[in-house]
Amino acid sequence: MSLLDKFKQKDKVALSKIITLVENQSPGYQNLLAQVYPDTGKAYRIGITGPPGSGKSSLVDRLTFNISNQGKSVGIIAVDPTSPFTGGALLGDRIRMQNLTTLENVFIRSMASRGSFGGLAKTTKEVSLVLDAFGKDYIIIETVGVGQVELDVVDTCDTTVVVFVPESGDSIQAMKAGLMEIADIIVVNKSDREGAESMVFELESILDLKRGKIGWEYPVISTQAVNNIGIEKLLQKIFDHRQFITENGFFEKHRKEQIKSEIKKLIEHKLKEITEKRVEKIFDIEKIVEKVLARKDDPYSAAERFLKEANLS
Amino acid sequence: MSLLDKFKQKDKVALSKIITLVENQSPGYQNLLAQVYPDTGKAYRIGITGPPGSGKSSLVDRLTFNISNQGKSVGIIAVDPTSPFTGGALLGDRIRMQNLTTLENVFIRSMASRGSFGGLAKTTKEVSLVLDAFGKDYIIIETVGVGQVELDVVDTCDTTVVVFVPESGDSIQAMKAGLMEIADIIVVNKSDREGAESMVFELESILDLKRGKIGWEYPVISTQAVNNIGIEKLLQKIFDHRQFITENGFFEKHRKEQIKSEIKKLIEHKLKEITEKRVEKIFDIEKIVEKVLARKDDPYSAAERFLKEANLS
Repeated sequence: MSLLDKFKQKDKVALSKIITLVENQSPGYQNLLAQVYPDTGKAYRIGITGPPGSGKSSLVDRLTFNISNQGKSVGIIAVDPTSPFTGGALLGDRIRMQNLTTLENVFIRSMASRGSFGGLAKTTKEVSLVLDAFGKDYIIIETVGVGQVELDVVDTCDTTVVVFVPESGDSIQAMKAGLMEIADIIVVNKSDREGAESMVFELESILDLKRGKIGWEYPVISTQAVNNIGIEKLLQKIFDHRQFITENGFFEKHRKEQIKSEIKKLIEHKLKEITEKRVEKIFDIEKIVEKVLARKDDPYSAAERFLKEANLS
Repeated sequence: MSLLDKFKQKDKVALSKIITLVENQSPGYQNLLAQVYPDTGKAYRIGITGPPGSGKSSLVDRLTFNISNQGKSVGIIAVDPTSPFTGGALLGDRIRMQNLTTLENVFIRSMASRGSFGGLAKTTKEVSLVLDAFGKDYIIIETVGVGQVELDVVDTCDTTVVVFVPESGDSIQAMKAGLMEIADIIVVNKSDREGAESMVFELESILDLKRGKIGWEYPVISTQAVNNIGIEKLLQKIFDHRQFITENGFFEKHRKEQIKSEIKKLIEHKLKEITEKRVEKIFDIEKIVEKVLARKDDPYSAAERFLKEANLS
C-alpha cells in the first residue's frame, strides 16, 4: 500500500511520515499536498501566541483535553524557537504535553523555527493542511510571540488567542501593543499572580479602541491553566468567535484571501528560483558587484538592465 | 538650481527633501538614488539596537557628541515603532536628542516603521545611502530590537551594537538570545542598576560560545549613558571593530554581499509587480480562488498552470 493510501486510512505513522516530507520540503512534496488538498478545508484553526513563559503549552494542553472530551479530534503544531547558538529548542516546556499523547484523537507535532529568528516554521501552513486532510476537527498552532511570527499565525488561523501573564518591564509593554493588534481573544494566564487584576483592567482599556468596529467583543479571559481554571470559558469564547466569523462571512472571506495569497506566493517563489538561474546565466553578477562597489555602476540601473535583457520588463 | 544640485552643495533642506522623496518612494526616487550613488560608499554605518527602554537614544546622543567633537560628521536614523492603534510612535524618547540639532555636522531623521510590526522602515537602507552621498562620515541607525528588525540592522550596518539593561523576565531572556547572535559589541547600559554585574557575567559566558571563531573579542561594555560613563570606551571598541573588519576583508566582503542581495531584491520586487499584472491578465484569479475553496482545484496546480501559460516555467 502506498504512503498516501495508508494516510487515507488514518494511519498515524503515515501521517508522521508525510508531515516530515512536507516539513523538509522533500522532492515531490507539493505534488503530495496537491493530492491531499481535496480533503482539506474542514478543520478549524486556532492560533495560540504570547511571550515566552506565559504558559501557552499548559493552556493548549487543557484546551485539547476539553475538545477531545467532546469527541472532536485535535492536531497540535507546536513551533519551538531554535536557539541560534545550540541549534536546539530554546524552551524545554513541550514535555508538559506528554499526557496528551495517550489520547487517541490527538496528534502533536513539534516544529523548530529553524533559525528563521522566532519566525513561524516556514511550512506550518502546509503541515496544517496535512492534518486537515487527515480529518482533524481542530488544529491548534502554538507559537512564541516575539515578532513577525504573530502576523503569520493570524494569516494561518481562524481564531487567534494571545496569552499574557502579569509581568512588568518596558520590553513587554512594547511587545504587547503588537500582539494585541492580532488578538481575537486575550487571555491573562497565571491570574493568581500579583498584578493580574490591574493587567486585565489595562488590557480592557486598550481593547476599547478596537471594539465596536466589527461587532466582535474581543474578550479578556483570566485563566490558571495549571489549575484548570477559566479553560471552559476560553473554549466557549473560541466557539463564539467561530460562530461570529462564520455568520458574518469573515471566515470565508479570510479563507479566500489565504488561498489567493498562497497562489501568489507559490508563483513568486518559483519566479524567484527562475530569476536566480537567469541572473547567473545572463548576468555576470560578480563583475557587476565589483563595478557597483567601485561606484562605476549602481544597483538600480543594474536591475533595470537585467529585466530588459531577460525580456521581463 | 535643481534639488540635486542643492543637495550636492550640502544644502540641509535639500537633504531633508530628498530623504522624504525616498522614504515615501515617490515616483522617480530610484532614479534619484542612482544619481547620488556614485558619491556613496564612504560612510561607516553603526547599528544600535536593543529592547525598548534600554536607553539607546541617550547612548546614541553621547556617541554622536563624541564623534562630532572629533571633527567627524554624523547622520542619525532613528526608527520608531508605530503603534498599531494610534498610528503614532510608541516611544516618546526621541526628545532627548534635541540638543544634538545645534551641532552643525549632525543630521537627525526619525522614521516610523509604518506598521511593518517592529520592522526596520523599508527604506532605511536607501535613506542611509542618501546620508552617505551627502558626505556624512558616520551613520548611526537606532532601532528597537523586538524581532526580525535586528537582522535587517545587521544587514545594513558595518558594526552592530546591542544594548541591554539589567532587567529580568522570561520574555527578555528569549529576546536576548536572538539579539546576542547579531551583536558585534554588547552594552549593559544603566549599569548602576541592581543586577548589572551578574548580567555582564551572564552575557560574557554566553559570548564565550561565539568567541574565537573569527578572532573578534565581542566585548561587553558597561555604560551609564545619562551620566556619560563608558561612552569613550564604547566608541573605541567601535573603532577597533572597524579596524578589525577592514583589515581582514570582512568589511568589503559584507559590502559586496549587500550589493548583490540589493540587486536581487530590486529584480524580485519588479518581477513581483510584473507578476501581479500578469496574474490579473492571464488568470481569472477570483474564479480560481472559488474553485480552490470548493476543493475542485488546488494552489499548487494553479501556480504551475500560471507559470506555463505565462511562458515562465
